[in-house]
Formats: sequence, C-alpha cells, structure tokens
Amino acid sequence: MKFGGTSVADPEKIQRAADRALTARRRGLAVVVVVSAPGEMTDELLALARRIDSRANGRELDQLMSTGEQVGISLFALACQSKGAAASSLTGAQAGIEVSGKPGDSRIARIRPGRVLKELRKGRIVTVAGFQGINPQGDVATLGRGGSDLTAVALAAALKCARCEIFTDVKGVYTADPRVVSEARKLSSISFEEMLELAGAGAQVMQPRSLELGQRHRVAIHVRSAFHPSPGTWILPRDKGAAEKPRVCALALDRGQARLSVHDMPDRPNSAAQLLSRLSEKGIPVDLIAQSPSPKRGLAELSLTLPKGFASQARQALASACRSLKASLELREHVAKVSVVGNGLRRHPTASARMFETLARHNIDIEMIAASDLRLSCVVDSRCAESAMRALHKAYGLAKA
Amino acid sequence: MKFGGTSVADPEKIQRAADRALTARRRGLAVVVVVSAPGEMTDELLALARRIDSRANGRELDQLMSTGEQVGISLFALACQSKGAAASSLTGAQAGIEVSGKPGDSRIARIRPGRVLKELRKGRIVTVAGFQGINPQGDVATLGRGGSDLTAVALAAALKCARCEIFTDVKGVYTADPRVVSEARKLSSISFEEMLELAGAGAQVMQPRSLELGQRHRVAIHVRSAFHPSPGTWILPRDKGAAEKPRVCALALDRGQARLSVHDMPDRPNSAAQLLSRLSEKGIPVDLIAQSPSPKRGLAELSLTLPKGFASQARQALASACRSLKASLELREHVAKVSVVGNGLRRHPTASARMFETLARHNIDIEMIAASDLRLSCVVDSRCAESAMRALHKAYGLAKA
Repeated sequence: MKFGGTSVADPEKIQRAADRALTARRRGLAVVVVVSAPGEMTDELLALARRIDSRANGRELDQLMSTGEQVGISLFALACQSKGAAASSLTGAQAGIEVSGKPGDSRIARIRPGRVLKELRKGRIVTVAGFQGINPQGDVATLGRGGSDLTAVALAAALKCARCEIFTDVKGVYTADPRVVSEARKLSSISFEEMLELAGAGAQVMQPRSLELGQRHRVAIHVRSAFHPSPGTWILPRDKGAAEKPRVCALALDRGQARLSVHDMPDRPNSAAQLLSRLSEKGIPVDLIAQSPSPKRGLAELSLTLPKGFASQARQALASACRSLKASLELREHVAKVSVVGNGLRRHPTASARMFETLARHNIDIEMIAASDLRLSCVVDSRCAESAMRALHKAYGLAKA
Repeated sequence: MKFGGTSVADPEKIQRAADRALTARRRGLAVVVVVSAPGEMTDELLALARRIDSRANGRELDQLMSTGEQVGISLFALACQSKGAAASSLTGAQAGIEVSGKPGDSRIARIRPGRVLKELRKGRIVTVAGFQGINPQGDVATLGRGGSDLTAVALAAALKCARCEIFTDVKGVYTADPRVVSEARKLSSISFEEMLELAGAGAQVMQPRSLELGQRHRVAIHVRSAFHPSPGTWILPRDKGAAEKPRVCALALDRGQARLSVHDMPDRPNSAAQLLSRLSEKGIPVDLIAQSPSPKRGLAELSLTLPKGFASQARQALASACRSLKASLELREHVAKVSVVGNGLRRHPTASARMFETLARHNIDIEMIAASDLRLSCVVDSRCAESAMRALHKAYGLAKA
C-alpha cells in the first residue's frame, strides 16, 4: 500500500489510512505501507532551505527533505500500534533501498528486502519511507517527482507481491478529467500500455517511471481513493486476446504545452534533424513532432510541442538555425493537446476518422496531429479544448461501460 | 561546537551560528558542529505523535523525534555552503554514534568516528545530529534530556579534541541566577566537580551526564552565548594546587523540590533504610536526606527532599510503613533549596558557619541542612528563597572576582 501526502496530511487522516492497513492485515495479508511526507511538509522544508540558500540543492537538501517521509512512517506506525497492531517503521536505508545517481533525482539501483521480510515474519505491519534510499556513499538520496509511487512499486516487485495499492486523492483513472467532462466514468481497469500513453498525454495520475516498473515486473497496480471505500482502477498487464480488439478507453487534455512551428523550411532530409539537435543540446524536451510538405515547392512545415516553461528558451535555441535555413519561426502558447488513448488506433482508421469528424463538426480547427499505436493527439486552440473533450467523450461513447 | 534548539530556531539564527563555525574554520581549526532540533520542532513532533496515541513511546517515537536534529544538521550545512565553506551533515548513525539501552533514554555505547574524520580530512565542516544514535538492531534511538550536549562531549572525546564549545541561550555560568541576584557575576572558569555540584543543586546550565563524560575524558567545555561574541565560562579539570584552597564559587536555587518529614520515628538503625527502600522500589528519586535524634527519647526525625512531581506518590508509598512504625508524616511543598557550592567547604567550617549566620541574621528559618565536600544546602520556606540568595551572594563576596 502507498499513501500520498494528502492521504496522511494530519493525525486523523493517518488514523484512517492505518485502518486500511489493519483491515488488510486482519484478512491475513502481509502488509507493507509506503508513506509520503504528511501534507505540506516537503514544501515547508524546502522553503526553510531556500531561506538559507535560494539555490540550495545536492546532498544536504536530500538529507533535509528525507525527514518528511521519516515523520510519515513513524506516525503511521504509531497509529497502527494505537489500534493494537504490531508495526515497525523503516527509512529507505533501513528497508534496503539502494539508489544511485545525483541527489534530488536518484534512481533505485536495487532493493535488499531482508529487514522488511524479517519484520513481516514477526507479523508486523511495516511502514517504509517513500521517495528515498541510500547511495553507495552511505548518504540519504531522494528519487525526484513521483518518488513514493516508485518506492511502492519497486518494493512490491522486490517482495514479489502480486499487487500494489496506490491510495491517493482521486478515486481512480477516469475516461476523462471529471472537472472537464461531467459524464466521465471511472475505469475498472486499464492496461499498462494505455496508462503510459495517458500519462504521456497529460493525465497526472501516476508518473511514467512507476508504471514502467510495474509493467516490467508484472505488479498489478490498484489506484484508489484514500477517503472512499469503493474500488478504484486496476492497472494490469495487457490481456493478449484483447490486444487485437480496438477500443478507445480514455481521453486526456494537456494545457501545459506550447506549439512551435517552422514555416518554409527547405524540404531536405536533414533539416528537421538540424533543428531538433539544437533543442536536445540544451536539454529541451519535445513532445509531439509533425512534418508535412509546404504548398510552396521544395519547402516543408515542421511543428512540435514542448512544455510551456521551455518555449522561449526553445525559440532562442532555434533562431539562428532558422535564419540560416531562411525559414520563419512561429510560437503559439495558447494551445492545448487533446488525446484519445486506446488499443489498436492506428490499425483501425475508423477510430481516428471519428476524432477528426467530431472536431470538424464542432468547428474546432486542428493545428497539428500526431498518432501512435495507442494514441491520437490533436493540438487545438486552448479556448476550444474543453468543448473538444466533451464532444469526443460523447462521440466515442465513453460514458457507458 | 554544539548549538542548542534556541540557537538554531530560525534560518537567520542558523546563519549566525554558521558564521561561528566558519570563523573557527578560517583560523585553521577542524570543526565538528553538533546541532539540536530547531526551535520548537521537537515539541511539535511530540504533539503530533500524542494526537495519534497519547501514550506514544518506544522505537517509533524515536524514529519520529530524531528527524528534528536531522533538519537542524542539513540546514546548518546548507548555511555553511551558502557562505562558501564545504560542509557535510551526518545523522547519528552516519557519524558512528552507537547507543544501547531503551528507546527515548539510550546511552552512548561507543563512537566510531571514521566517517567524521574522513569528512574533516576533506576540509569540510561536519555537522552531526545531536540526541541520537544507532542501536544494535540498526534502529535510530534517542538519548533523553540534554542528549545533544552528551553527543557533543562524547564526540569531542572520541575525536580527542581538547575542547568542546556549548553555544546556548545564556552567557555562561554565573555566581547565581542573574534573574534572582542582580549582582551575579559570570565566572571565567569552574571545575567539573563544582559544576556537577551546581547542576545537582538545581542550576540548569548542563546535564550531569555530559559533565561526567567531559570530566572523565578531560575535555574542556566552554559554555557561551550563541548570540554574543564575549567568552563564556570554561569548565575545566580541577587544578591540583587550587583544590587545597577553599573557595565558594557560586550559589544555586532549586524551587522544584518538596520536603517530606517523618516525625517520631523509632531511632533504630534500620528505620530510615526501611522507609527509603519503599521509595526506591517505586523509582522515586530522593535528593537530600537528613536524620537527627528527636527531643523525645528513643525517637528520631528523618527529612528528605524530592522533586515536587513525586511528592504525593512518595507520601502514599510511605504511609503504611509510617503507620507500622507509629511515626507521623509531614509533606511541605512550599520550600526551596538554597545551596553554596565551592571547594573544601566541609574542611573549612568558617565557610559553612557564614551560611548559617547570614540566614539567621536575616531571620530565615533553616528547615533542613545537608552538606558534602563541595556543597552546603539549606531548605528554607520558598517565600524567603530569593532574599536568602541575595544575602548569601553578598556575604560570600561573590560579586567581585
């Protein structure tokens, strides 16, 4: 089980979370609980550090940040004990979570679960600090964003658990963001592949690193609410038979991207490569890429999307290359990416045709299209994004199971 | 160097404390800084735990409480780094502080300072978490009250340091509490023996455990203010020659004790032992003990003092034993213990005579007397305590160096 920061934000919420662990323990299950830092603690610690040094980072910041989860695990274990269950808390180091890489963004290198197993054998509920491990220098290091999910899935894999429950502040994975599409429906299950595509398309339920790990080790992940008893969504390895049958399972909306277009680029094989290498040199991430011939002979149009925060840096990086190609550069920040995720979309053109028809019927201009086997994305004007989502949700019949 | 919680209560105070460490480092000294939990953090963590379980204790509480010092060391190291000095923070476990005993009240068993020395050799300022260590089970355990002082002195001894500086919220050791005696003077030095007696008499500058450790390993301790640059008080091994010369060095006032008197106790050798064993069975600590024959033949008077918090428990523990001895029991809570501390007091009766004369001249009734080589204590009515302190301070000429 993994409980995020909002699920353990105060002593009362910790008590409720502990009840979940105790219920599972009473059913005869061995229970390991990965706990995040309670509530705003991580942000508060970061603010303290920033007051001392606005650029604080590195080993010392990790030593500081890791205390939030340590507070979480000990309070959680105390809550279990107060309800009559034996419980032990383990820091990342005590739980044998060995990491490598740079402070603040380490990777789990291996897990030696000896101590966890020893505590489980004593019949105890074991609480483990998420987001942290110990590096080869014997220092505490943190895992970066979504780190507690990663700890939970990696630990489940190391302990050969069949499942990992992620308790969070949403009830599961929906066919679309319920704040945008009121008829959105909670999915009872979704494949790792689809979930990865949804995450890539902007759904913020789980970080891709945790999903990839679960997929690789075949750990079924149950995303569910910490505050409601109803089941959530199971993320499962793909059913071999089902893979052949096309289905659209969910929509995603990403408002965090900007579109950068290069007009009148010479239509030569290396033009796009030349431009894209300028971006990768600067470490600027690119999401969608689409190229098409220009109506003008011998020229082409290249469009790409990237996180808004990198937009002006990207424009700068491309400026001189565009000048030497005699191409012009256009940046559009008021765009949104609308995506349809599901199995076999590329192999079944009717599914993609429905997307374009629906948007056209609603007079929504498609600025850019990109497709993969599991995803169809259209970039549209941000003012049309929500109506596009609602229209597509209806057109694909997603409100009905 | 050791900085207590009030000395690192906020980022600005941490910056100032870091300046002290940097100044020493620039003078070419190798600097190890033991840091407490900032400000009220320990109390806040305890309050969180109590909201989950009002009787919270044991291993999990230690895991929780130890995070306060971990926050202190990382913020302190970040402050050093922001000022351009290399610095590394080490938890108790990383610093090789091995402890034994029960959670919440462990003892330092040994220190393996390898990692500390390694960091020092790299020219770094090393910050070490006070109040904590690692026990044979690999668990974090805390040292109980005054634990950070203990960490500092033990680490100084393990590193064979000649001195240990304790930065605190007082300017040093005074001839009397300046809030009571306005002419009280800061001592430039005091012996470990005298300091231990002062601590036993109620002065709250340092815990006896740390003093005993410093005395045993001949680590000179400098108690000084974290907020003022002036030197404080050195606590030093006793100068052999000076031991022969009597001197009164300071007064102490303890308002935290109650007096329990047994009247008309049979004057037999085992009477007192019988009563005192009832108290030790219950773990009730006793401070002063005085017995004297009663004016009534064959009977005696026994008086003792103990912390007020134990008073009613002690009365209960003695009730039946007193009944069987046909003795009566009297409890007085409004008393105070006034002590004179110095070298060779017992061997020089003029020093003790001056105490009794002074109190008599001021019409202050002495309810009980106890003496050791280094201390003379009188129990008086608590309403007379402050005037007794002022009179004695003048009579012993303590305002002049």
